[in-house]
Amino acid sequence: MKEKITMDLFERLEKLYTGLVCDVLDDELGFRKNVYIMSHEIRPLYFGAVVTGRAATALAVPVYTEPAKPYQGELEFIDSLEPGDVVVATQSGAMNAGLWGGLLSTGARYRGARGAVVDGITRDTKAIMGMKFPVFIRGIGPADSKGRIDVINHHLRIKCAGAWVNPGDVIFGDNDGVVVVPQDIAIDIVRLAEEKYEKEKNFEGGLRKGATVAEMFERYKIL
Amino acid sequence: MKEKITMDLFERLEKLYTGLVCDVLDDELGFRKNVYIMSHEIRPLYFGAVVTGRAATALAVPVYTEPAKPYQGELEFIDSLEPGDVVVATQSGAMNAGLWGGLLSTGARYRGARGAVVDGITRDTKAIMGMKFPVFIRGIGPADSKGRIDVINHHLRIKCAGAWVNPGDVIFGDNDGVVVVPQDIAIDIVRLAEEKYEKEKNFEGGLRKGATVAEMFERYKIL
Amino acid sequence: MKEKITMDLFERLEKLYTGLVCDVLDDELGFRKNVYIMSHEIRPLYFGAVVTGRAATALAVPVYTEPAKPYQGELEFIDSLEPGDVVVATQSGAMNAGLWGGLLSTGARYRGARGAVVDGITRDTKAIMGMKFPVFIRGIGPADSKGRIDVINHHLRIKCAGAWVNPGDVIFGDNDGVVVVPQDIAIDIVRLAEEKYEKEKNFEGGLRKGATVAEMFERYKIL
Amino acid sequence: MKEKITMDLFERLEKLYTGLVCDVLDDELGFRKNVYIMSHEIRPLYFGAVVTGRAATALAVPVYTEPAKPYQGELEFIDSLEPGDVVVATQSGAMNAGLWGGLLSTGARYRGARGAVVDGITRDTKAIMGMKFPVFIRGIGPADSKGRIDVINHHLRIKCAGAWVNPGDVIFGDNDGVVVVPQDIAIDIVRLAEEKYEKEKNFEGGLRKGATVAEMFERYKIL
Amino acid sequence: MKEKITMDLFERLEKLYTGLVCDVLDDELGFRKNVYIMSHEIRPLYFGAVVTGRAATALAVPVYTEPAKPYQGELEFIDSLEPGDVVVATQSGAMNAGLWGGLLSTGARYRGARGAVVDGITRDTKAIMGMKFPVFIRGIGPADSKGRIDVINHHLRIKCAGAWVNPGDVIFGDNDGVVVVPQDIAIDIVRLAEEKYEKEKNFEGGLRKGATVAEMFERYKIL
Amino acid sequence: MKEKITMDLFERLEKLYTGLVCDVLDDELGFRKNVYIMSHEIRPLYFGAVVTGRAATALAVPVYTEPAKPYQGELEFIDSLEPGDVVVATQSGAMNAGLWGGLLSTGARYRGARGAVVDGITRDTKAIMGMKFPVFIRGIGPADSKGRIDVINHHLRIKCAGAWVNPGDVIFGDNDGVVVVPQDIAIDIVRLAEEKYEKEKNFEGGLRKGATVAEMFERYKIL
Repeated sequence: MKEKITMDLFERLEKLYTGLVCDVLDDELGFRKNVYIMSHEIRPLYFGAVVTGRAATALAVPVYTEPAKPYQGELEFIDSLEPGDVVVATQSGAMNAGLWGGLLSTGARYRGARGAVVDGITRDTKAIMGMKFPVFIRGIGPADSKGRIDVINHHLRIKCAGAWVNPGDVIFGDNDGVVVVPQDIAIDIVRLAEEKYEKEKNFEGGLRKGATVAEMFERYKIL
Repeated sequence: MKEKITMDLFERLEKLYTGLVCDVLDDELGFRKNVYIMSHEIRPLYFGAVVTGRAATALAVPVYTEPAKPYQGELEFIDSLEPGDVVVATQSGAMNAGLWGGLLSTGARYRGARGAVVDGITRDTKAIMGMKFPVFIRGIGPADSKGRIDVINHHLRIKCAGAWVNPGDVIFGDNDGVVVVPQDIAIDIVRLAEEKYEKEKNFEGGLRKGATVAEMFERYKIL
Repeated sequence: MKEKITMDLFERLEKLYTGLVCDVLDDELGFRKNVYIMSHEIRPLYFGAVVTGRAATALAVPVYTEPAKPYQGELEFIDSLEPGDVVVATQSGAMNAGLWGGLLSTGARYRGARGAVVDGITRDTKAIMGMKFPVFIRGIGPADSKGRIDVINHHLRIKCAGAWVNPGDVIFGDNDGVVVVPQDIAIDIVRLAEEKYEKEKNFEGGLRKGATVAEMFERYKIL
Repeated sequence: MKEKITMDLFERLEKLYTGLVCDVLDDELGFRKNVYIMSHEIRPLYFGAVVTGRAATALAVPVYTEPAKPYQGELEFIDSLEPGDVVVATQSGAMNAGLWGGLLSTGARYRGARGAVVDGITRDTKAIMGMKFPVFIRGIGPADSKGRIDVINHHLRIKCAGAWVNPGDVIFGDNDGVVVVPQDIAIDIVRLAEEKYEKEKNFEGGLRKGATVAEMFERYKIL
Repeated sequence: MKEKITMDLFERLEKLYTGLVCDVLDDELGFRKNVYIMSHEIRPLYFGAVVTGRAATALAVPVYTEPAKPYQGELEFIDSLEPGDVVVATQSGAMNAGLWGGLLSTGARYRGARGAVVDGITRDTKAIMGMKFPVFIRGIGPADSKGRIDVINHHLRIKCAGAWVNPGDVIFGDNDGVVVVPQDIAIDIVRLAEEKYEKEKNFEGGLRKGATVAEMFERYKIL
Repeated sequence: MKEKITMDLFERLEKLYTGLVCDVLDDELGFRKNVYIMSHEIRPLYFGAVVTGRAATALAVPVYTEPAKPYQGELEFIDSLEPGDVVVATQSGAMNAGLWGGLLSTGARYRGARGAVVDGITRDTKAIMGMKFPVFIRGIGPADSKGRIDVINHHLRIKCAGAWVNPGDVIFGDNDGVVVVPQDIAIDIVRLAEEKYEKEKNFEGGLRKGATVAEMFERYKIL
């Protein structure tokens, strides 16, 4: 029977770095061909931001008229978040306004969300940085979403910044980027990444003692 | 009779943030369709930079030969600046050299300019950051403009980073972006933005007390 | 007989800034048409990073299968570095993985390299920033190069971020960008840049005393 | 009382060319600043295609899951078309599949539609060209829209290839591009374009008799 | 035991169109998520070009120095082609020169190749069109590959214009685009595409008799 | 003493193709590093268009206000053309309007110009194709230049679509692209291209008799 993903897995992940997880997905489990890494154009809002948690997804699209009930999908989505969730949303390429902002960050945190990854725009960056809410984003801008971008669906499979994300997948973002770990292999991946972490420390120790990178690669078979 | 824009308006604006001003332009005055927000690709040179003031515009274009009198338009423009001005200039897409730099920042500040917004490139970033001159820019590079980019006109209507700017419009830039407020409505816009600022504080206070975003939106009709 | 480039030239350069060197290449030695400035899209990994040294070049290209001997070219290249070298490498446009990272930074530093300029992706940014190794890069991402990018040749002429680089050219990168100085004129260029540095100080001093930029340009003929 | 737009207006337009209509919108009616010309990246599927008629709009967006009822919005929209309509639709930037194709062209023509302008992809180009249905499009590709692109709304204001389009606006596309004429000024615009057409013939006649372009511009004040 | 792919399969494919094959891959065999369709930016050199056959792949990359033996990989690759092959090659994003041209088209045809799909540039377009060799390409330019682009490997798995291609996969290109059919399912796919072709004819026949698209979709469940 | 370029050189060039000229510039005269080939994004307006002649250059830039004397630079430039000239102009990246069109084509032809190469937009394509005036262009659109694009200088060195062009350089465009041949080597280049043309015929003849491309390359040392 499958082991359940619990909060401590997210905490263990936070001690690692995203490169390690990518390497393990690549090499140990044959995921090289799969699309599980977001574009390098998604960046943390501030240096040191780290996010780990369970994907809660939303699909937003460009629109050109004000809806009858503005923000309806957005508000429903925020109020549906649960502890351990990470918001993962896409604006489907629209960059003329931001889905994300300060009030949503506050709302999401009060529901227990651990951060947000949005292929789009955020505003209220000063407030978000002040509350240390880890937001990963494509860009920053002041325009509101009303009449420009609408959440048309949530809690469904989406493609976000080039990566496929299913609700419940484990999200890991740090200063190197954002990785999506399929939920049914997440526990194994974290364990393997922890093992690789040890090897890298030894490799680096060897370099510090004067070994060549070729010698260390020969010994540890990693880079 | 129209109220005159004075320096204290710029100081009031500095206490707000650009998102608020965009919302007011959108909702209260029906400006949603208008092009008054610069592209999210224009970024402040350093975190915390804020600029407010009156637009003083310059049009620069790519050239491929050294002019007879190098820098002529650029020098004239800088020496024409007045207290309260914000430089707003475009390089018309050329990214191989920078119009802006340290000496121009020093020159502009000595004429009383409050900052610069350039759809182009700046250099001398260390010096500019050292003097805390708020520069908003598309990119950073070391090459000089001579024989590459020329100011062909100034103090005229231009399109800068997607936004139309008339000389005298009120410019507001912060970490979320740069907004252009038409001068004849600027006083009203600032007042309305101040009012919306209060509502947002209350909305956020409600979230902190455990309200859902839907409840707060229902009460304040803002997001 | 040509004067030899020694380490102290790199130290003199570090006291200047890249804009000065570009101006001297442009004006004094007629290099304006030449391609010696890298694209503004190459940025230092952290503010304050400065790199000077002798170019050691590598050519990497996108691949789609794992090589028989993974990382072979990369390891050879790192182990061939010598004191005073600056790594200059291109990923030939591939942005789906990073050639550069923490272990290579450690390895390069232990060989005596003074920094790295890579038209591509780095990972392990936290570790690299922690060791203050000056890396100039197009982007940041967590994916490893194995099966995605291969070093196919090194120590040869390459085009990196729009600039032609020959092994042995003098590389200078700071917060304003990266410049390539052909090795046979490097000593002259540094001397001329030092002279221009003095003029700029005087120009700026004049502005601080209230002169117009036009007056100062008239006196010093520089901008 | 406003004159009603009838089919013969579309036939008169077909004898003109889009450049003339743009000039009239620019000069005679002060529309220069308005966004009524689609991007030059929208091209006719075959040389000689001309479309005129009344805009019937549809908004499609990228999706990543198959809807419960596939194609629902698309089918409703096609079956709602009326004689004189021109389909105007946007895929909101998604280029991985095509909204348009051969069966929709046949369906639209049987409802009386006069052509289609889609900021997106079409397939079945051989069949469409065979039936001489004027399609203006951003690109060509073989993939179907199911699970990739969905029509979420129709008969509403949209932005298509940079131009705002209201249902009922007059659409004019030829080998030079696609123009949107607001419906309440369409009759005046066509009349003025017909007048300018005469002047251009005379201008060209003058050139053929050896006049300079400056002389002819002096006489006709047009170019 | 698997049925062998023979030349007549290629001839059957030529009677269909690429959209049909995409639909079958999507719906009948669950390939929707897979990357088997090349970018819409790959276009046939002339209208009416159709290519079907077995993929023979080559990997070319940008270089900046003339190789010791110019064109070596390219010549080897062309001389290795066999009857039924379709050249599938990528220039890895380099667009400053062309891998493909008139002499290679002649050489390839004399080896029995049925066409070429190159994510890159071709030259000698007049000659190629004169000999009716079906070339699918990203762009057209006059510059030769020597010292600019090198074939570094051939007959291996590559990514070409966004699609993964294994040697031996079945390639199908027509005016709508280029599709890659994995070789072990190619025979089934062609049979299913032939069946769907019949349904589409009936659907279209219904429309011509006045049915709505909704009625025809209800009956045939295809679009 | 230098031989003068006469009309018959342009006629000899027309019998060759641009690829040949690029090869000769590359190999015989060491021009590989130089920028003498325009971007592949510049295309002939119609298949079969060929242009040869002497460059007459114009520099146009984006503007945002109507000039006091509209079209002044444009009209002066057209009226200054002489027999044998080819218009070479750049819009400096602006794509929202076209410098070129039908009346300018008529005017240019009446002055004796042999064609036009514009890094920008043309309109009136039907008329231009009707008069068989060879226009090479980046795009097609209906909008006029007034208040959008201005000719600010002419008969000076410009960069056009990535290639440096001096007034008087020999321009050669065909379906493969556009090449700029510096005027002082043009006569030699044409002669060498004619010689290479013969070798290519023999190479192709060999292939038709069954030789491999490797054998033919071994014999002729060209590709």
